[in-house]
Amino acid sequence: MTALENKFRKLATDNAPGQEVRQNDSSLASLTLGEALPGIQVDFSHGDVDAFEPTPGSLERFVEGVHIGGKRAYTEYRGDSQIREKLAVRLGDFTGASIASHQQLILTPGSQGALFLAIATTTSAGDKVAIVQPDYFANRKLVEFFDGEIVPVSMDYLANDKSAGLDLSQLEDAFKAGAKVFVFSNPNNPAGVVYSAEEIAIIAQLAERYGVTVIVDQLYSRLLYSNESYTHLCAQPVIPENLITIMGPSKTESLSGYRLGVAFGSAHIINRMEKLQAIVSLRAGGYSQSVLQGWFSEPAGWMEERIRLHQAIRDDLINAFSAIDGVAIRCPQAGSYLFPRLPELRLRSEDFVRVLRHQANVIVTPGTEFSPHATQSVRLNFSQDHQAAIKAVERMATLIGRYRK
Amino acid sequence: MTALENKFRKLATDNAPGQEVRQNDSSLASLTLGEALPGIQVDFSHGDVDAFEPTPGSLERFVEGVHIGGKRAYTEYRGDSQIREKLAVRLGDFTGASIASHQQLILTPGSQGALFLAIATTTSAGDKVAIVQPDYFANRKLVEFFDGEIVPVSMDYLANDKSAGLDLSQLEDAFKAGAKVFVFSNPNNPAGVVYSAEEIAIIAQLAERYGVTVIVDQLYSRLLYSNESYTHLCAQPVIPENLITIMGPSKTESLSGYRLGVAFGSAHIINRMEKLQAIVSLRAGGYSQSVLQGWFSEPAGWMEERIRLHQAIRDDLINAFSAIDGVAIRCPQAGSYLFPRLPELRLRSEDFVRVLRHQANVIVTPGTEFSPHATQSVRLNFSQDHQAAIKAVERMATLIGRYRK
Repeated sequence: MTALENKFRKLATDNAPGQEVRQNDSSLASLTLGEALPGIQVDFSHGDVDAFEPTPGSLERFVEGVHIGGKRAYTEYRGDSQIREKLAVRLGDFTGASIASHQQLILTPGSQGALFLAIATTTSAGDKVAIVQPDYFANRKLVEFFDGEIVPVSMDYLANDKSAGLDLSQLEDAFKAGAKVFVFSNPNNPAGVVYSAEEIAIIAQLAERYGVTVIVDQLYSRLLYSNESYTHLCAQPVIPENLITIMGPSKTESLSGYRLGVAFGSAHIINRMEKLQAIVSLRAGGYSQSVLQGWFSEPAGWMEERIRLHQAIRDDLINAFSAIDGVAIRCPQAGSYLFPRLPELRLRSEDFVRVLRHQANVIVTPGTEFSPHATQSVRLNFSQDHQAAIKAVERMATLIGRYRK
Repeated sequence: MTALENKFRKLATDNAPGQEVRQNDSSLASLTLGEALPGIQVDFSHGDVDAFEPTPGSLERFVEGVHIGGKRAYTEYRGDSQIREKLAVRLGDFTGASIASHQQLILTPGSQGALFLAIATTTSAGDKVAIVQPDYFANRKLVEFFDGEIVPVSMDYLANDKSAGLDLSQLEDAFKAGAKVFVFSNPNNPAGVVYSAEEIAIIAQLAERYGVTVIVDQLYSRLLYSNESYTHLCAQPVIPENLITIMGPSKTESLSGYRLGVAFGSAHIINRMEKLQAIVSLRAGGYSQSVLQGWFSEPAGWMEERIRLHQAIRDDLINAFSAIDGVAIRCPQAGSYLFPRLPELRLRSEDFVRVLRHQANVIVTPGTEFSPHATQSVRLNFSQDHQAAIKAVERMATLIGRYRK
């Protein structure tokens, strides 16, 4: 097998959210027990933008962009300067950081685009990169693609409730061992937990002390539930010299179809990211960039209502999972992910996920996408129709009962 | 300097089309002679989508995509299957190749996205890659980014008129020397010349014989002028085992603001490209994908009229350049680029380009972006307002006279 073949074999996407349609399910019959459970399909692999629609006015802003014409179709690679100026102020207000729009901010095709550019511009072959387990699967895949070496840092989110549960001594060990980059999501994807103020302060101090580049993916930081608090690393009194913060309106604001994200932070990394974006995709879609004019400027009360509705679903699903014998789950503090650990089953986790889709019309993402150790966990994005989600978790409960050891 | 610093230093974008706004022009005063020439700005660095508007119905198709909602926002990473089915038939009709929509076609964010994925999935560190001089600047930059080794193959477009002028013995030498990949644009960007049927047949045969992967960027192949013929490599009787063809509606169809491209060809490379797209940008913008439903299905006569209007501009500008003492130029057979070689000037080519912008309000791209040997050439995209383009070339002629040796 050539190096390239091996690299792309590891970059498997068969179990990635949304790719289930490409699986060959011919071998499934030998695994299933009992009858199928009827019910409306719920695809927990991503949020349902029909249940939670895009921010009001988004399409109108896109159409405005089309009418602006060439100036909006062909922006600087890092994005339209007027839009960056507006966003720099709003993101500064939200995070508490100071952001120079001309030097420290880039618009990207989705926050995935930002994450790709951030890792590509900071990681060389052989570089050690600290990765949380569990965390967003693309972090690991991107480091592997650029031939970096992953140094795992564990997060025991189930054993903690006042912090995310990151093992900070493991993190320092990784830095001592020469990790050049630390990439993590906050709130954590898949567990939905938020790093405490103390954890963020220590991460910032350690990274500064050891000269580690930090990439923090804050994609879900706006969807923060009542009585929770959030600490922005970029606004800490001590921050690492190389720090990139990633956000985007694809999730809470349901704007994924427009492919928009942003990264802000250290100017020389943003510069590199722009140079790379020039040969990867040129720029975030020009007309789509116009949609960002409405970001952090939603109608009064809109975001509060969106959070309230998600919190109600969260609470019902947490109750439902907690009632299933043998399930361990922590209530998410932000975002729309649940990451229950299931009891031991007679099937491998990946096979249970396939059975669940075929017998219960319920799509979830296997935990092993997020950590090699999360063999009993599955991820659900609960940004769904409320009643359909409850029914779907009832069907899950039935199948967990049917397949447990 | 670290390896990463060096890599991104080489990935310079300061002279790239559209990035002029980021240049520091403080040193310009010492270079300029005489007075500025008044006139409407013409930005020849890219096509003017206000002068040549997007295909009729494009925005309406986008809006339809938004109304389809979640199903269109979250397609497979390689793009919506129904849209791929339609396009596979149309691209097959256009090129003469047989394209399996499920296995051999991927939708990407712009044709730039397709080019990035194609090179990233076929080029490893140390691999030799044959690159035409001159050719699209991203070809070279992408190979450098993936630490490939460039093997230049020269194309003497000025000395030929029945063929593009590729040095086929140099190409075979490159293949003999172990080149793994050959990437080229047809029609050539920047020179606008089309490879002859014989050139394409020989390229296909040589690549097949030496086991070389071929990536052919056919972005401008629809904008073919009267009495010209075009040969699709993918429809040759003998083709290399690994072949990717890239197209997109960003240029002729003026849809750049929607960021759409396609790649089709060898299924295992398309598979890799999808896996990589999953961590680079997830997918071409979901709603934008809907716009592709109108591609190769434009209103009757629309494409013919677009070609006729471009041909009229081409002919006027060719006449204008041919009248300038010391300019060498070849009439483009397809696309909307001119690549005149200017007489020797008292300024470096990059400085003349800056002076031209400041004194004449005319933006062109320096030839050295396309070949290290094209120090006297500049590229113009003449998809512009016809009269404004003529006036701009008159101002260029005045400044060429003013600055020539």
